[in-house]
Amino acid sequence: MKRRNIQLDKQGRLRHFLTVEGLSRALLVDILDTAESFAGVTSQSVKKVPLLRGRTVVNLFFEASTRTRTTFELAAKRLSADVLNIHISASATSKGETLLDTLANLEAMQCDMFVVRHDKSGAAHFIASHVAPHISVINAGDGSHAHPTQAMLDMFTIRRHKGDFYPLSVAIVGDIMHSRVARSQIHALTTLGVNEVRVIGPKTLIPRYINTLGVHVFHSLREGIRGVDVVIMLRLQHERMSGALLPSEQEYYHCYGLTEEKLSVAKPDAVVMHPGPINRGVEIDSTVADGPRSVILQQVTHGIAVRMAVMSMALGGQRGASGG
Amino acid sequence: MKRRNIQLDKQGRLRHFLTVEGLSRALLVDILDTAESFAGVTSQSVKKVPLLRGRTVVNLFFEASTRTRTTFELAAKRLSADVLNIHISASATSKGETLLDTLANLEAMQCDMFVVRHDKSGAAHFIASHVAPHISVINAGDGSHAHPTQAMLDMFTIRRHKGDFYPLSVAIVGDIMHSRVARSQIHALTTLGVNEVRVIGPKTLIPRYINTLGVHVFHSLREGIRGVDVVIMLRLQHERMSGALLPSEQEYYHCYGLTEEKLSVAKPDAVVMHPGPINRGVEIDSTVADGPRSVILQQVTHGIAVRMAVMSMALGGQRGASGG
Amino acid sequence: MKRRNIQLDKQGRLRHFLTVEGLSRALLVDILDTAESFAGVTSQSVKKVPLLRGRTVVNLFFEASTRTRTTFELAAKRLSADVLNIHISASATSKGETLLDTLANLEAMQCDMFVVRHDKSGAAHFIASHVAPHISVINAGDGSHAHPTQAMLDMFTIRRHKGDFYPLSVAIVGDIMHSRVARSQIHALTTLGVNEVRVIGPKTLIPRYINTLGVHVFHSLREGIRGVDVVIMLRLQHERMSGALLPSEQEYYHCYGLTEEKLSVAKPDAVVMHPGPINRGVEIDSTVADGPRSVILQQVTHGIAVRMAVMSMALGGQRGASGG
Repeated sequence: MKRRNIQLDKQGRLRHFLTVEGLSRALLVDILDTAESFAGVTSQSVKKVPLLRGRTVVNLFFEASTRTRTTFELAAKRLSADVLNIHISASATSKGETLLDTLANLEAMQCDMFVVRHDKSGAAHFIASHVAPHISVINAGDGSHAHPTQAMLDMFTIRRHKGDFYPLSVAIVGDIMHSRVARSQIHALTTLGVNEVRVIGPKTLIPRYINTLGVHVFHSLREGIRGVDVVIMLRLQHERMSGALLPSEQEYYHCYGLTEEKLSVAKPDAVVMHPGPINRGVEIDSTVADGPRSVILQQVTHGIAVRMAVMSMALGGQRGASGG
Repeated sequence: MKRRNIQLDKQGRLRHFLTVEGLSRALLVDILDTAESFAGVTSQSVKKVPLLRGRTVVNLFFEASTRTRTTFELAAKRLSADVLNIHISASATSKGETLLDTLANLEAMQCDMFVVRHDKSGAAHFIASHVAPHISVINAGDGSHAHPTQAMLDMFTIRRHKGDFYPLSVAIVGDIMHSRVARSQIHALTTLGVNEVRVIGPKTLIPRYINTLGVHVFHSLREGIRGVDVVIMLRLQHERMSGALLPSEQEYYHCYGLTEEKLSVAKPDAVVMHPGPINRGVEIDSTVADGPRSVILQQVTHGIAVRMAVMSMALGGQRGASGG
Repeated sequence: MKRRNIQLDKQGRLRHFLTVEGLSRALLVDILDTAESFAGVTSQSVKKVPLLRGRTVVNLFFEASTRTRTTFELAAKRLSADVLNIHISASATSKGETLLDTLANLEAMQCDMFVVRHDKSGAAHFIASHVAPHISVINAGDGSHAHPTQAMLDMFTIRRHKGDFYPLSVAIVGDIMHSRVARSQIHALTTLGVNEVRVIGPKTLIPRYINTLGVHVFHSLREGIRGVDVVIMLRLQHERMSGALLPSEQEYYHCYGLTEEKLSVAKPDAVVMHPGPINRGVEIDSTVADGPRSVILQQVTHGIAVRMAVMSMALGGQRGASGG
């Protein structure tokens, strides 16, 4: 007998969104379809729908991230929710209150959703396993574990450009070891049934367990992106540089920085993605980032629609027009 | 001839809410009744009412308090008001502007309400006595003086559990000396006509004037809570420890920390309250805080309804369904 | 052939509002007329109009200014827009992202307007010249260059009190050299056709090029304000004191501080203005600031209406009732 996934309610519907791992293909497709219905909303001049009117979404950020907080705040407001931004380090914990007491208080204030960002892996899962039944938790990035809304907006972007997933070869390039984005992407791509996932990076930045996820490992960028349909570049965290895992930014760029010349071995219609913010001249050349194959800014736009989809599904709101 | 209470308008209606002291029993009951009408709103899925649409509420916090600010922000948003959060220390005063000039500017911007938190006793009263006629001021805690919305949410919680006030014995335990909450509670309880208010704490933390308020003083927790209907624990401010007013947290817990065993001498159906955030193992044991007699989280929930009541009454908004 | 003004679209309508310089008299009057239609809105009890519902306004502040941010936030909310407050120093640039990438991301999130405050002259213009076609930029103060919404609220205040501009003599007093407000005021006053603009201040604080703007320079306050209809005092930045440009606050007050006695040589019905926050006893005496000729707080009130006008015009919203 299988233990029920904490992310789903008894009817198998999305309640929390903590990780892509363990979710069904049908559910991921449902998220993409729901997001598709919101993609139109965000390009109207009145970009609001009343699905979450009267609901309260709390951005519970234990780690600062203006960019991610902004996307969730915009998604919530465009669903007509009220939004509270709370930085936990600067608030109750300084008065000695426990995290669970802080959460219990926000629950008692009849908040409906916690969007959680934390530098410790598993934090969102921990919170989801302790909240009251009426609360939904969305993981907005936990340590090096997962960043599922980022992965889903990447899938949304791939589907918009490539249609079906099954014939695709997708390469993920960079610091796989420390990337919550990469882990979530790999789970999403394999669940959605792409033909092949490749991970590319120096040995020091590719974890050993990665083979168990069904991916192919490459240490040469040129070899790895040969013939792929999608190239996903990861952000290089500057702090890794001081950790002796990498020789220098210059050498990293020489080996793994994506240039037009290196990209020429991918499929002619290959698209280039990046979760942002980009380090120009470190992991990606500006001619590629700003070039015709880059869909980096479309990812940002789709991120709003995908977050609107996940939020409205988790709170049981009605689906948009074309939603499943 | 009695000087008119600054909190009331010429018709005797609530204009500012600065302190419970000096308000009539009828007005306090009116606040509780109005809050009762909002208590239903906050448990609906659409938790908004349009009473304060187009009004602007300014959270004017001279002292950081995420928890209190959050409850007022939620209450205002659920009344459909626009909310501005302003930390005064980080703003105009650093440019040398006087407080009264800052207030005059916010008034000129057509704001409607100032929710004031300040570490100096009397700050909210000072501000209320200087604002323009169209502005209401709510005291969200001033020094060791008053915290009237906290007291009223406590009264609301007591009434919900006990019905009438007149037969009740209520004990307040802890640092009476420095507690703005305790002062406001005592005024509210005596105005609402409870049978007996007891204050319990070490001699160093009970002020001498307290007898003039009509309460009974106990220095033994066991004696003090014998037979009471309601036990209100106060938060122990850690900073008092260094002030030689208390021997140690351990000894304080030994004498005044509420445990199941000590609670057994209260009435069998006694409820336990605490304004939060709680210090587990200092003023209250976790088995009590999380136990069946604890109504601590209900206090938080009621806090939203009570603040909605006070805000809408002060701004002359229509009352909720069952409002007086 | 004249290069098109970046502030106007092809039909000559306001798209960005970066500086008063180069805008036509008709457009400035249109702003004032539109603001007039909003001035009524802000004194209603429901102060909202739905013109910008579903639009997203980003306060992009590279320099802290609670007061200015607050006025734009209120103006946007009263137009029913969603508002994001972003301090750039504390966000993406600390991760090494370029400013243009930050802007591109906000554009991709389908934001509609950037309200920009920056300590470098030309920053708002730079941003406006790089944004996507659907974005409007409002300059909320850039270095010592311009502060056009401040100038327009001053014009609005003057028109309300004096009616026509053409017969007026207006004096601007203080640190003309470093004042973005003064520059914008001079352009607005001359475009609107006042009879005479005088600038008054010590030689060290009046730039040499000022004569090219068609103003008369005075170094004596008494001479300069003789017979004027409007006296605009500028804020003295304390940091100028350490720069050897001024002897002392005391001496500055003696020479250029506005007192009732000095004001007596202006026209009997002259009004006194100040952009705030005021330094009492430095550039202005309290008896003047709080006296019957002061319209300083009216300027603040008008500032909301003028910002509503500029925002709604730039986003192509319908004009208010009496709008041109």
